Amino acid sequence: MRTVLVIGIGAGDPDHMTLQAVAALQRADVVFVIDKGEARDDLLALRTQILQRHRPDGGYRLVTAPEVDRDRGAEVARDAGRYRDVVVDWQDRRADLYREMLTTELAEGATGAFLVWGDPSLYDGTLRLLDRVLDGIEGEWAVESIAGISSVAALAAAHRLILNRVGRPILITTGRRIADGIPADVDDVVVMLDGRTAFATLPAQQRAELHIYWGAYLGTPDELLVAGPLDEVREEILAVRAAARERMGWIMDTYLLRRGADER
Amino acid sequence: MRTVLVIGIGAGDPDHMTLQAVAALQRADVVFVIDKGEARDDLLALRTQILQRHRPDGGYRLVTAPEVDRDRGAEVARDAGRYRDVVVDWQDRRADLYREMLTTELAEGATGAFLVWGDPSLYDGTLRLLDRVLDGIEGEWAVESIAGISSVAALAAAHRLILNRVGRPILITTGRRIADGIPADVDDVVVMLDGRTAFATLPAQQRAELHIYWGAYLGTPDELLVAGPLDEVREEILAVRAAARERMGWIMDTYLLRRGADER
Ligand SMILES: C[S@@+](CC[C@H](N)C(=O)[O-])C[C@H]1O[C@@H](n2cnc3c(N)ncnc32)[C@H](O)[C@@H]1O
Ligand SMILES: C[S@@+](CC[C@H](N)C(=O)[O-])C[C@H]1O[C@@H](n2cnc3c(N)ncnc32)[C@H](O)[C@@H]1O
Repeated sequence: MRTVLVIGIGAGDPDHMTLQAVAALQRADVVFVIDKGEARDDLLALRTQILQRHRPDGGYRLVTAPEVDRDRGAEVARDAGRYRDVVVDWQDRRADLYREMLTTELAEGATGAFLVWGDPSLYDGTLRLLDRVLDGIEGEWAVESIAGISSVAALAAAHRLILNRVGRPILITTGRRIADGIPADVDDVVVMLDGRTAFATLPAQQRAELHIYWGAYLGTPDELLVAGPLDEVREEILAVRAAARERMGWIMDTYLLRRGADER
Repeated sequence: MRTVLVIGIGAGDPDHMTLQAVAALQRADVVFVIDKGEARDDLLALRTQILQRHRPDGGYRLVTAPEVDRDRGAEVARDAGRYRDVVVDWQDRRADLYREMLTTELAEGATGAFLVWGDPSLYDGTLRLLDRVLDGIEGEWAVESIAGISSVAALAAAHRLILNRVGRPILITTGRRIADGIPADVDDVVVMLDGRTAFATLPAQQRAELHIYWGAYLGTPDELLVAGPLDEVREEILAVRAAARERMGWIMDTYLLRRGADER
Protein backbone atom coordinates (compact mmCIF):
# COMPACT_ATOMS: atom_id res chain seq x y z
CA MET A 1 0.00 0.00 0.00
CA ARG A 2 1.09 3.53 -0.84
CA THR A 3 -0.52 6.64 0.58
CA VAL A 4 -0.92 10.03 -1.02
CA LEU A 5 -1.87 12.91 1.24
CA VAL A 6 -3.44 16.04 -0.18
CA ILE A 7 -2.81 18.60 2.51
CA GLY A 8 -4.56 21.95 2.66
CA ILE A 9 -2.00 24.43 3.98
CA GLY A 10 -4.27 27.45 4.27
CA ALA A 11 -4.59 30.56 2.19
CA GLY A 12 -1.42 32.50 2.90
CA ASP A 13 -0.76 32.51 6.64
CA PRO A 14 1.54 29.68 7.80
CA ASP A 15 -0.49 29.68 11.03
CA HIS A 16 -3.53 28.54 9.02
CA MET A 17 -2.01 25.05 9.20
CA THR A 18 -4.19 22.75 11.27
CA LEU A 19 -2.72 20.34 13.79
CA GLN A 20 -3.99 17.61 11.48
CA ALA A 21 -2.10 19.08 8.53
CA VAL A 22 1.07 19.36 10.61
CA ALA A 23 0.77 15.71 11.64
CA ALA A 24 0.09 14.65 8.06
CA LEU A 25 3.09 16.57 6.79
CA GLN A 26 5.23 14.84 9.39
CA ARG A 27 4.20 11.44 8.03
CA ALA A 28 5.38 12.21 4.51
CA ASP A 29 8.39 10.46 3.05
CA VAL A 30 8.12 12.43 -0.15
CA VAL A 31 6.73 15.92 -0.66
CA PHE A 32 5.58 16.66 -4.18
CA VAL A 33 5.60 20.18 -5.48
CA ILE A 34 3.94 21.15 -8.71
CA ASP A 35 6.06 23.77 -10.37
CA LYS A 36 3.66 26.24 -11.88
CA GLY A 37 6.59 27.95 -13.52
CA GLU A 38 5.15 31.36 -12.80
CA ALA A 39 6.88 34.48 -11.63
CA ARG A 40 4.93 34.48 -8.41
CA ASP A 41 6.73 32.74 -5.66
CA ASP A 42 4.01 33.03 -3.04
CA LEU A 43 3.10 29.38 -3.00
CA LEU A 44 6.71 28.31 -3.08
CA ALA A 45 7.64 30.66 -0.25
CA LEU A 46 4.76 29.47 1.92
CA ARG A 47 5.60 25.83 1.27
CA THR A 48 9.23 26.37 2.09
CA GLN A 49 8.38 28.15 5.30
CA ILE A 50 5.95 25.42 6.32
CA LEU A 51 8.42 22.65 5.55
CA GLN A 52 11.20 24.36 7.48
CA ARG A 53 8.96 24.84 10.44
CA HIS A 54 7.36 21.42 10.64
CA ARG A 55 10.11 19.24 9.19
CA PRO A 56 13.19 21.11 10.44
CA ASP A 57 15.28 17.95 10.43
CA GLY A 58 14.43 17.09 6.85
CA GLY A 59 13.89 13.35 6.57
CA TYR A 60 11.71 13.68 3.47
CA ARG A 61 12.45 13.97 -0.20
CA LEU A 62 11.25 17.00 -2.14
CA VAL A 63 10.18 16.14 -5.65
CA THR A 64 9.31 18.92 -8.02
CA ALA A 65 6.93 18.01 -10.79
CA PRO A 66 7.04 20.27 -13.79
CA GLU A 67 3.66 21.64 -14.80
CA VAL A 68 2.61 20.25 -18.17
CA ASP A 69 2.24 22.95 -20.79
CA ARG A 70 -1.31 23.54 -21.79
CA ASP A 71 -1.41 23.61 -25.55
CA ARG A 72 -1.15 27.28 -26.31
CA GLY A 73 -3.45 26.68 -29.24
CA ALA A 74 -6.27 26.01 -26.79
CA GLU A 75 -7.93 29.35 -27.29
CA VAL A 76 -7.89 28.92 -31.02
CA ALA A 77 -9.06 25.34 -30.76
CA ARG A 78 -11.95 26.39 -28.60
CA ASP A 79 -13.19 28.69 -31.30
CA ALA A 80 -12.88 25.79 -33.68
CA GLY A 81 -14.94 23.64 -31.31
CA ARG A 82 -11.91 21.56 -30.41
CA TYR A 83 -11.35 23.11 -26.97
CA ARG A 84 -12.54 19.99 -25.20
CA ASP A 85 -10.10 17.80 -27.10
CA VAL A 86 -7.20 20.03 -26.23
CA VAL A 87 -8.10 20.02 -22.56
CA VAL A 88 -8.59 16.27 -22.48
CA ASP A 89 -5.29 15.73 -24.22
CA TRP A 90 -3.56 18.01 -21.73
CA GLN A 91 -5.17 16.18 -18.84
CA ASP A 92 -4.04 12.85 -20.28
CA ARG A 93 -0.45 13.98 -20.67
CA ARG A 94 -0.52 15.41 -17.19
CA ALA A 95 -1.93 12.22 -15.72
CA ASP A 96 0.74 10.17 -17.47
CA LEU A 97 3.48 12.35 -16.10
CA TYR A 98 2.15 12.17 -12.56
CA ARG A 99 1.57 8.44 -12.74
CA GLU A 100 5.16 8.01 -13.79
CA MET A 101 6.36 10.29 -11.04
CA LEU A 102 4.31 8.66 -8.31
CA THR A 103 5.30 5.12 -9.18
CA THR A 104 8.95 6.09 -9.50
CA GLU A 105 9.16 8.13 -6.35
CA LEU A 106 6.89 6.29 -3.92
CA ALA A 107 8.09 2.88 -2.80
CA GLU A 108 5.71 0.28 -1.43
CA GLY A 109 4.64 1.37 2.06
CA ALA A 110 5.69 4.97 1.52
CA THR A 111 3.65 8.13 2.00
CA GLY A 112 3.71 11.09 -0.32
CA ALA A 113 2.20 14.53 0.20
CA PHE A 114 0.94 17.28 -2.05
CA LEU A 115 0.73 20.65 -0.33
CA VAL A 116 -2.29 22.49 -1.63
CA TRP A 117 -3.08 26.18 -1.27
CA GLY A 118 -6.15 26.86 0.90
CA ASP A 119 -8.53 23.93 1.08
CA PRO A 120 -8.20 21.06 -1.40
CA SER A 121 -11.97 21.06 -1.96
CA LEU A 122 -12.19 24.53 -3.45
CA TYR A 123 -11.10 25.34 -7.00
CA ASP A 124 -8.08 23.10 -6.81
CA GLY A 125 -7.41 20.28 -9.21
CA THR A 126 -5.08 18.04 -7.20
CA LEU A 127 -7.72 15.53 -6.05
CA ARG A 128 -9.16 15.35 -9.56
CA LEU A 129 -5.74 14.77 -11.03
CA LEU A 130 -4.99 12.02 -8.51
CA ASP A 131 -8.30 10.35 -9.29
CA ARG A 132 -7.27 10.18 -12.89
CA VAL A 133 -3.69 9.16 -12.18
CA LEU A 134 -4.55 6.36 -9.80
CA ASP A 135 -7.28 4.99 -11.98
CA GLY A 136 -5.67 1.87 -13.40
CA ILE A 137 -2.35 2.28 -11.60
CA GLU A 138 -0.67 -0.87 -10.34
CA GLY A 139 -0.70 -1.76 -6.64
CA GLU A 140 -2.82 -0.42 -3.81
CA TRP A 141 -2.98 3.32 -3.33
CA ALA A 142 -4.82 5.32 -0.68
CA VAL A 143 -5.63 9.01 -0.95
CA GLU A 144 -6.38 11.20 2.05
CA SER A 145 -7.57 14.77 1.89
CA ILE A 146 -6.75 17.10 4.77
CA ALA A 147 -9.03 20.13 5.05
CA GLY A 148 -7.44 23.56 5.12
CA ILE A 149 -8.47 27.16 5.72
CA SER A 150 -9.74 28.38 2.36
CA SER A 151 -9.37 31.88 1.01
CA VAL A 152 -13.13 32.18 1.54
CA ALA A 153 -12.75 31.54 5.27
CA ALA A 154 -9.72 33.86 5.33
CA LEU A 155 -11.68 36.61 3.62
CA ALA A 156 -14.54 36.30 6.09
CA ALA A 157 -12.19 36.32 9.08
CA ALA A 158 -10.31 39.37 7.85
CA HIS A 159 -13.56 41.34 7.53
CA ARG A 160 -15.12 39.66 10.59
CA LEU A 161 -17.96 38.53 8.36
CA ILE A 162 -20.60 35.89 8.64
CA LEU A 163 -20.98 34.92 4.99
CA ASN A 164 -24.66 34.00 5.18
CA ARG A 165 -27.57 35.99 6.45
CA VAL A 166 -29.81 34.08 8.88
CA GLY A 167 -31.12 30.95 7.19
CA ARG A 168 -30.05 32.15 3.75
CA PRO A 169 -27.70 30.66 1.16
CA ILE A 170 -24.20 31.54 -0.02
CA LEU A 171 -22.97 31.15 -3.56
CA ILE A 172 -19.28 30.63 -4.26
CA THR A 173 -18.44 31.31 -7.87
CA THR A 174 -15.89 32.72 -10.30
CA GLY A 175 -15.35 36.11 -11.91
CA ARG A 176 -16.23 34.69 -15.28
CA ARG A 177 -19.60 33.46 -14.01
CA ILE A 178 -20.76 36.82 -12.71
CA ALA A 179 -19.76 38.80 -15.78
CA ASP A 180 -23.42 39.33 -16.63
CA GLY A 181 -24.55 39.84 -13.05
CA ILE A 182 -25.14 37.82 -9.91
CA PRO A 183 -28.14 35.49 -9.76
CA ALA A 184 -31.39 37.01 -8.53
CA ASP A 185 -32.03 34.38 -5.87
CA VAL A 186 -28.83 34.69 -3.82
CA ASP A 187 -27.85 37.77 -1.86
CA ASP A 188 -24.40 36.67 -0.72
CA VAL A 189 -21.92 35.76 -3.42
CA VAL A 190 -18.25 34.98 -2.89
CA VAL A 191 -16.19 35.48 -6.02
CA MET A 192 -12.86 33.79 -6.66
CA LEU A 193 -10.61 33.51 -9.68
CA ASP A 194 -11.51 36.93 -10.95
CA GLY A 195 -8.68 38.21 -13.10
CA ARG A 196 -11.00 40.54 -14.92
CA THR A 197 -12.40 42.50 -11.94
CA ALA A 198 -15.94 41.50 -12.78
CA PHE A 199 -17.28 43.41 -9.76
CA ALA A 200 -16.48 46.67 -11.50
CA THR A 201 -18.51 45.95 -14.59
CA LEU A 202 -21.66 44.45 -13.10
CA PRO A 203 -24.89 45.95 -14.39
CA ALA A 204 -25.29 49.40 -12.81
CA GLN A 205 -28.60 48.46 -11.25
CA GLN A 206 -27.01 45.53 -9.42
CA ARG A 207 -24.01 47.55 -8.35
CA ALA A 208 -26.26 50.07 -6.69
CA GLU A 209 -27.65 47.49 -4.30
CA LEU A 210 -24.42 45.68 -3.50
CA HIS A 211 -21.76 45.97 -0.83
CA ILE A 212 -18.36 44.49 -1.49
CA TYR A 213 -15.90 43.04 0.99
CA TRP A 214 -12.66 42.66 -0.90
CA GLY A 215 -9.37 41.10 0.17
CA ALA A 216 -6.05 40.46 -1.55
CA TYR A 217 -3.02 38.48 -0.36
CA LEU A 218 -5.18 37.41 2.57
CA GLY A 219 -3.31 36.02 5.53
CA THR A 220 0.03 37.38 4.31
CA PRO A 221 1.90 40.47 5.48
CA ASP A 222 0.76 42.13 2.24
CA GLU A 223 -2.94 41.66 3.01
CA LEU A 224 -5.16 44.38 1.56
CA LEU A 225 -8.78 44.96 2.56
CA VAL A 226 -11.41 47.32 1.23
CA ALA A 227 -15.13 47.23 2.04
CA GLY A 228 -18.13 49.40 1.38
CA PRO A 229 -21.01 50.08 -0.98
CA LEU A 230 -19.82 48.81 -4.35
CA ASP A 231 -20.37 52.05 -6.21
CA GLU A 232 -18.49 53.99 -3.57
CA VAL A 233 -15.39 51.79 -3.33
CA ARG A 234 -15.22 50.34 -6.82
CA GLU A 235 -12.67 52.84 -8.11
CA GLU A 236 -10.62 52.54 -4.95
CA ILE A 237 -10.42 48.76 -5.27
CA LEU A 238 -9.45 49.01 -8.93
CA ALA A 239 -6.68 51.46 -8.05
CA VAL A 240 -5.42 49.55 -5.01
CA ARG A 241 -5.52 46.32 -6.95
CA ALA A 242 -3.67 47.67 -9.96
CA ALA A 243 -0.97 49.26 -7.82
CA ALA A 244 -0.48 46.10 -5.77
CA ARG A 245 -0.31 43.95 -8.84
CA GLU A 246 2.26 46.24 -10.34
CA ARG A 247 4.32 46.24 -7.15
CA MET A 248 4.13 42.49 -6.45
CA GLY A 249 4.04 41.17 -9.99
CA TRP A 250 0.95 39.05 -9.25
CA ILE A 251 -2.27 39.27 -7.31
CA MET A 252 -4.65 36.92 -5.57
CA ASP A 253 -7.95 38.42 -4.53
CA THR A 254 -11.39 37.30 -3.43
CA TYR A 255 -14.51 39.16 -2.42
CA LEU A 256 -18.02 38.91 -1.09
CA LEU A 257 -20.82 40.73 -2.88
CA ARG A 258 -23.74 41.30 -0.53
CA ARG A 259 -27.14 42.55 -1.55
CA GLY A 260 -29.01 44.59 1.02
CA ALA A 261 -26.10 44.72 3.45
CA ASP A 262 -28.08 46.92 5.81
CA GLU A 263 -30.41 44.10 6.74
CA ARG A 264 -28.77 41.59 9.02
CA MET B 1 -8.92 48.43 25.06
CA ARG B 2 -10.55 45.05 25.45
CA THR B 3 -10.29 42.28 22.89
CA VAL B 4 -12.84 39.63 22.03
CA LEU B 5 -11.64 36.68 19.98
CA VAL B 6 -14.08 34.55 18.05
CA ILE B 7 -12.17 31.36 17.48
CA GLY B 8 -13.22 28.70 15.00
CA ILE B 9 -12.31 25.37 16.58
CA GLY B 10 -13.20 23.12 13.64
CA ALA B 11 -16.09 20.82 13.04
CA GLY B 12 -15.54 17.95 15.44
CA ASP B 13 -11.91 16.88 15.31
CA PRO B 14 -9.69 18.58 17.91
CA ASP B 15 -6.89 18.39 15.32
CA HIS B 16 -8.88 20.77 13.12
CA MET B 17 -7.53 23.55 15.34
CA THR B 18 -5.19 25.80 13.40
CA LEU B 19 -1.93 27.04 14.85
CA GLN B 20 -3.52 30.48 14.76
CA ALA B 21 -6.48 29.29 16.81
CA VAL B 22 -4.17 27.65 19.34
CA ALA B 23 -2.18 30.87 19.70
CA ALA B 24 -5.39 32.90 20.04
CA LEU B 25 -6.71 30.58 22.70
CA GLN B 26 -3.48 30.95 24.60
CA ARG B 27 -3.96 34.73 24.70
CA ALA B 28 -7.36 34.51 26.36
CA ASP B 29 -7.84 35.65 29.94
CA VAL B 30 -11.47 34.64 29.87
CA VAL B 31 -13.12 31.90 27.83
CA PHE B 32 -16.83 32.37 27.27
CA VAL B 33 -19.06 29.40 26.73
CA ILE B 34 -22.63 29.74 25.57
CA ASP B 35 -24.65 27.09 27.32
CA LYS B 36 -27.11 25.81 24.75
CA GLY B 37 -28.77 23.79 27.48
CA GLU B 38 -29.24 20.86 25.15
CA ALA B 39 -28.81 17.18 25.82
CA ARG B 40 -25.98 16.96 23.31
CA ASP B 41 -22.65 17.45 24.88
CA ASP B 42 -20.57 17.32 21.70
CA LEU B 43 -19.64 20.97 21.68
CA LEU B 44 -18.94 20.97 25.40
CA ALA B 45 -16.79 17.85 25.12
CA LEU B 46 -14.78 19.26 22.22
CA ARG B 47 -14.26 22.55 24.01
CA THR B 48 -13.13 20.84 27.17
CA GLN B 49 -10.71 18.67 25.27
CA ILE B 50 -9.30 21.65 23.42
CA LEU B 51 -8.90 23.71 26.56
CA GLN B 52 -7.18 20.87 28.42
CA ARG B 53 -4.82 20.36 25.55
CA HIS B 54 -3.87 23.94 24.81
CA ARG B 55 -4.25 25.53 28.23
CA PRO B 56 -3.18 22.64 30.46
CA ASP B 57 -2.03 24.99 33.20
CA GLY B 58 -5.29 26.88 33.32
CA GLY B 59 -4.58 30.57 33.76
CA TYR B 60 -7.89 31.61 32.25
CA ARG B 61 -11.38 32.01 33.64
CA LEU B 62 -14.22 29.97 32.17
CA VAL B 63 -17.47 31.91 32.07
CA THR B 64 -20.62 30.15 31.06
CA ALA B 65 -23.31 32.32 29.58
CA PRO B 66 -26.78 30.88 29.76
CA GLU B 67 -28.57 30.80 26.43
CA VAL B 68 -31.53 33.14 26.44
CA ASP B 69 -34.82 31.35 25.95
CA ARG B 70 -36.37 32.00 22.61
CA ASP B 71 -39.99 32.76 23.17
CA ARG B 72 -41.63 29.41 22.61
CA GLY B 73 -44.56 31.24 21.10
CA ALA B 74 -42.39 32.18 18.16
CA GLU B 75 -43.91 29.65 15.79
CA VAL B 76 -47.37 30.85 16.63
CA ALA B 77 -46.34 34.46 16.38
CA ARG B 78 -44.89 33.87 12.97
CA ASP B 79 -48.22 32.68 11.71
CA ALA B 80 -49.70 35.79 13.18
CA GLY B 81 -47.08 37.88 11.33
CA ARG B 82 -45.35 38.72 14.58
CA TYR B 83 -42.39 36.38 14.10
CA ARG B 84 -40.01 39.23 13.43
CA ASP B 85 -40.99 41.01 16.64
CA VAL B 86 -40.40 37.91 18.70
CA VAL B 87 -36.98 37.37 17.16
CA VAL B 88 -35.98 40.99 17.60
CA ASP B 89 -37.08 40.96 21.21
CA TRP B 90 -35.09 37.78 21.81
CA GLN B 91 -32.03 39.28 20.15
CA ASP B 92 -32.35 42.39 22.31
CA ARG B 93 -32.56 40.40 25.52
CA ARG B 94 -29.65 38.31 24.43
CA ALA B 95 -27.54 41.33 23.54
CA ASP B 96 -28.29 42.90 26.93
CA LEU B 97 -27.23 39.77 28.73
CA TYR B 98 -23.99 39.49 26.80
CA ARG B 99 -23.17 43.16 27.15
CA GLU B 100 -23.58 42.81 30.89
CA MET B 101 -21.45 39.68 30.93
CA LEU B 102 -18.67 41.14 28.81
CA THR B 103 -18.37 44.36 30.77
CA THR B 104 -18.45 42.49 34.07
CA GLU B 105 -15.99 39.79 33.14
CA LEU B 106 -13.49 41.58 30.92
CA ALA B 107 -11.31 44.15 32.64
CA GLU B 108 -9.56 46.91 30.72
CA GLY B 109 -6.71 45.39 28.71
CA ALA B 110 -8.10 41.86 28.98
CA THR B 111 -8.81 39.39 26.20
CA GLY B 112 -11.87 37.17 26.03
CA ALA B 113 -12.53 34.28 23.68
CA PHE B 114 -15.61 32.61 22.29
CA LEU B 115 -14.97 29.12 20.94
CA VAL B 116 -17.13 28.58 17.91
CA TRP B 117 -17.94 25.28 16.21
CA GLY B 118 -16.49 25.00 12.69
CA ASP B 119 -15.81 28.34 11.08
CA PRO B 120 -17.30 31.54 12.57
CA SER B 121 -18.35 32.72 9.12
CA LEU B 122 -20.76 29.89 8.40
CA TYR B 123 -24.21 29.68 9.96
CA ASP B 124 -22.99 30.87 13.34
CA GLY B 125 -24.40 33.88 15.13
CA THR B 126 -21.53 34.81 17.43
CA LEU B 127 -20.08 37.63 15.30
CA ARG B 128 -23.57 39.02 14.68
CA LEU B 129 -24.33 38.95 18.38
CA LEU B 130 -21.06 40.70 19.23
CA ASP B 131 -21.77 43.38 16.64
CA ARG B 132 -25.00 44.09 18.40
CA VAL B 133 -23.56 43.84 21.88
CA LEU B 134 -20.61 46.12 21.25
CA ASP B 135 -22.68 48.70 19.42
CA GLY B 136 -22.91 51.48 21.96
CA ILE B 137 -20.89 49.73 24.67
CA GLU B 138 -18.57 51.89 26.74
CA GLY B 139 -14.82 51.86 26.18
CA GLU B 140 -12.79 50.53 23.28
CA TRP B 141 -13.40 46.99 22.13
CA ALA B 142 -11.70 45.03 19.36
CA VAL B 143 -13.12 41.89 17.78
CA GLU B 144 -10.98 39.35 15.95
CA SER B 145 -12.31 36.41 14.00
CA ILE B 146 -10.13 33.33 13.63
CA ALA B 147 -11.03 31.09 10.69
CA GLY B 148 -11.72 27.44 11.39
CA ILE B 149 -12.30 24.24 9.44
CA SER B 150 -16.00 24.26 8.62
CA SER B 151 -18.22 21.21 8.41
CA VAL B 152 -18.30 21.88 4.67
CA ALA B 153 -14.53 21.49 4.42
CA ALA B 154 -14.71 18.45 6.73
CA LEU B 155 -17.39 16.85 4.56
CA ALA B 156 -15.34 17.37 1.43
CA ALA B 157 -12.19 15.98 3.03
CA ALA B 158 -13.98 12.89 4.35
CA HIS B 159 -15.28 12.07 0.87
CA ARG B 160 -12.11 13.35 -0.84
CA LEU B 161 -14.28 15.72 -2.82
CA ILE B 162 -13.62 18.86 -4.76
CA LEU B 163 -16.87 20.73 -4.15
CA ASN B 164 -16.94 22.58 -7.45
CA ARG B 165 -16.67 21.26 -10.94
CA VAL B 166 -14.13 23.08 -13.11
CA GLY B 167 -15.03 26.77 -13.26
CA ARG B 168 -18.50 26.15 -11.85
CA PRO B 169 -20.21 27.51 -8.73
CA ILE B 170 -21.11 25.97 -5.38
CA LEU B 171 -24.20 26.82 -3.39
CA ILE B 172 -24.22 26.43 0.40
CA THR B 173 -27.72 26.41 1.78
CA THR B 174 -30.10 24.96 4.36
CA GLY B 175 -32.50 22.03 4.41
CA ARG B 176 -35.41 24.40 4.59
CA ARG B 177 -34.32 26.20 1.43
CA ILE B 178 -34.20 23.10 -0.74
CA ALA B 179 -37.54 21.70 0.38
CA ASP B 180 -38.98 22.45 -3.06
CA GLY B 181 -35.88 21.45 -4.98
CA ILE B 182 -32.42 22.75 -5.70
CA PRO B 183 -32.00 25.72 -8.04
CA ALA B 184 -31.71 24.94 -11.73
CA ASP B 185 -28.53 26.95 -12.27
CA VAL B 186 -26.25 25.24 -9.72
CA ASP B 187 -25.11 21.65 -9.94
CA ASP B 188 -23.26 21.42 -6.62
CA VAL B 189 -25.23 22.21 -3.51
CA VAL B 190 -24.01 21.76 0.06
CA VAL B 191 -26.85 21.46 2.55
CA MET B 192 -26.52 22.24 6.24
CA LEU B 193 -29.02 22.60 9.08
CA ASP B 194 -31.30 19.96 7.65
CA GLY B 195 -33.31 18.49 10.48
CA ARG B 196 -36.01 17.41 8.08
CA THR B 197 -33.93 15.27 5.70
CA ALA B 198 -34.93 17.41 2.75
CA PHE B 199 -32.78 15.29 0.40
CA ALA B 200 -35.25 12.45 0.74
CA THR B 201 -38.25 14.42 -0.39
CA LEU B 202 -36.84 16.35 -3.31
CA PRO B 203 -38.92 16.19 -6.48
CA ALA B 204 -38.46 12.70 -8.00
CA GLN B 205 -37.16 14.14 -11.24
CA GLN B 206 -34.38 15.99 -9.42
CA ARG B 207 -33.53 13.02 -7.26
CA ALA B 208 -32.97 10.90 -10.33
CA GLU B 209 -30.15 13.14 -11.54
CA LEU B 210 -28.43 13.72 -8.21
CA HIS B 211 -25.64 12.06 -6.30
CA ILE B 212 -25.39 12.63 -2.58
CA TYR B 213 -22.28 12.69 -0.41
CA TRP B 214 -23.54 12.58 3.14
CA GLY B 215 -21.64 12.85 6.42
CA ALA B 216 -22.64 12.92 10.07
CA TYR B 217 -20.53 13.61 13.18
CA LEU B 218 -17.74 14.52 10.77
CA GLY B 219 -14.29 14.58 12.28
CA THR B 220 -15.39 12.68 15.37
CA PRO B 221 -14.90 8.99 16.17
CA ASP B 222 -18.59 8.53 15.37
CA GLU B 223 -18.23 9.83 11.80
CA LEU B 224 -20.67 8.28 9.35
CA LEU B 225 -20.37 8.52 5.58
CA VAL B 226 -22.67 7.40 2.79
CA ALA B 227 -22.36 8.33 -0.88
CA GLY B 228 -24.02 7.33 -4.11
CA PRO B 229 -26.84 8.07 -6.52
CA LEU B 230 -29.51 9.71 -4.39
CA ASP B 231 -32.28 7.31 -5.30
CA GLU B 232 -30.07 4.34 -4.53
CA VAL B 233 -28.80 5.45 -1.11
CA ARG B 234 -31.68 7.57 0.12
CA GLU B 235 -33.27 4.83 2.19
CA GLU B 236 -29.91 3.78 3.58
CA ILE B 237 -29.11 7.31 4.73
CA LEU B 238 -32.52 7.68 6.34
CA ALA B 239 -32.02 4.41 8.20
CA VAL B 240 -28.41 5.10 9.23
CA ARG B 241 -29.36 8.60 10.30
CA ALA B 242 -32.35 7.53 12.35
CA ALA B 243 -30.40 4.78 14.10
CA ALA B 244 -27.49 7.09 14.90
CA ARG B 245 -29.77 9.77 16.18
CA GLU B 246 -31.51 7.28 18.39
CA ARG B 247 -28.21 5.93 19.71
CA MET B 248 -26.49 9.30 20.27
CA GLY B 249 -29.50 11.39 21.22
CA TRP B 250 -28.62 14.06 18.61
CA ILE B 251 -27.27 14.30 15.13
CA MET B 252 -25.28 16.76 13.07
CA ASP B 253 -25.15 16.07 9.36
CA THR B 254 -24.24 17.81 6.13
CA TYR B 255 -24.22 16.72 2.54
CA LEU B 256 -23.38 17.63 -1.01
CA LEU B 257 -25.96 17.16 -3.75
CA ARG B 258 -24.30 16.90 -7.13
CA ARG B 259 -26.07 16.94 -10.45
CA GLY B 260 -24.46 14.96 -13.24
CA ALA B 261 -21.80 13.43 -11.02
CA ASP B 262 -20.44 11.39 -13.90
CA GLU B 263 -19.07 14.46 -15.62
CA ARG B 264 -15.97 15.73 -13.95
C1 LIG C 1 -7.09 28.19 -7.86
S1 LIG C 1 -8.03 28.96 -6.59
C2 LIG C 1 -7.47 28.08 -5.19
C3 LIG C 1 -8.32 28.29 -3.99
C4 LIG C 1 -7.82 27.55 -2.76
N1 LIG C 1 -7.90 26.11 -2.92
C5 LIG C 1 -8.58 27.99 -1.53
O1 LIG C 1 -9.09 27.14 -0.80
O2 LIG C 1 -8.61 29.20 -1.25
C6 LIG C 1 -7.21 30.52 -6.49
C7 LIG C 1 -8.14 31.66 -6.10
O3 LIG C 1 -8.33 31.64 -4.70
C8 LIG C 1 -8.40 32.96 -4.20
N2 LIG C 1 -7.32 33.11 -3.21
C9 LIG C 1 -6.50 32.14 -2.77
N3 LIG C 1 -5.69 32.60 -1.82
C10 LIG C 1 -6.00 33.89 -1.63
C11 LIG C 1 -5.50 34.89 -0.76
N4 LIG C 1 -4.51 34.65 0.10
N5 LIG C 1 -6.05 36.12 -0.84
C12 LIG C 1 -7.05 36.38 -1.69
N6 LIG C 1 -7.55 35.47 -2.53
C13 LIG C 1 -7.03 34.23 -2.50
C14 LIG C 1 -8.27 33.88 -5.38
O4 LIG C 1 -9.59 34.22 -5.78
C15 LIG C 1 -7.61 33.03 -6.40
O5 LIG C 1 -7.97 33.42 -7.71
C1 LIG D 1 -25.29 26.11 13.26
S1 LIG D 1 -24.44 25.35 11.96
C2 LIG D 1 -22.79 25.68 12.40
C3 LIG D 1 -21.82 25.45 11.30
C4 LIG D 1 -20.37 25.69 11.69
N1 LIG D 1 -20.13 27.11 11.99
C5 LIG D 1 -19.42 25.21 10.62
O1 LIG D 1 -18.57 25.97 10.17
O2 LIG D 1 -19.52 24.04 10.25
C6 LIG D 1 -24.66 23.65 12.33
C7 LIG D 1 -24.75 22.77 11.10
O3 LIG D 1 -23.45 22.50 10.64
C8 LIG D 1 -23.35 21.18 10.16
N2 LIG D 1 -22.31 20.48 10.95
C9 LIG D 1 -21.51 21.06 11.87
N3 LIG D 1 -20.64 20.18 12.34
C10 LIG D 1 -20.86 19.02 11.71
C11 LIG D 1 -20.25 17.74 11.76
N4 LIG D 1 -19.24 17.49 12.58
N5 LIG D 1 -20.75 16.77 10.95
C12 LIG D 1 -21.77 17.02 10.12
N6 LIG D 1 -22.37 18.21 10.04
C13 LIG D 1 -21.93 19.21 10.81
C14 LIG D 1 -24.72 20.56 10.29
O4 LIG D 1 -25.37 20.71 9.06
C15 LIG D 1 -25.36 21.41 11.34
O5 LIG D 1 -26.76 21.45 11.18
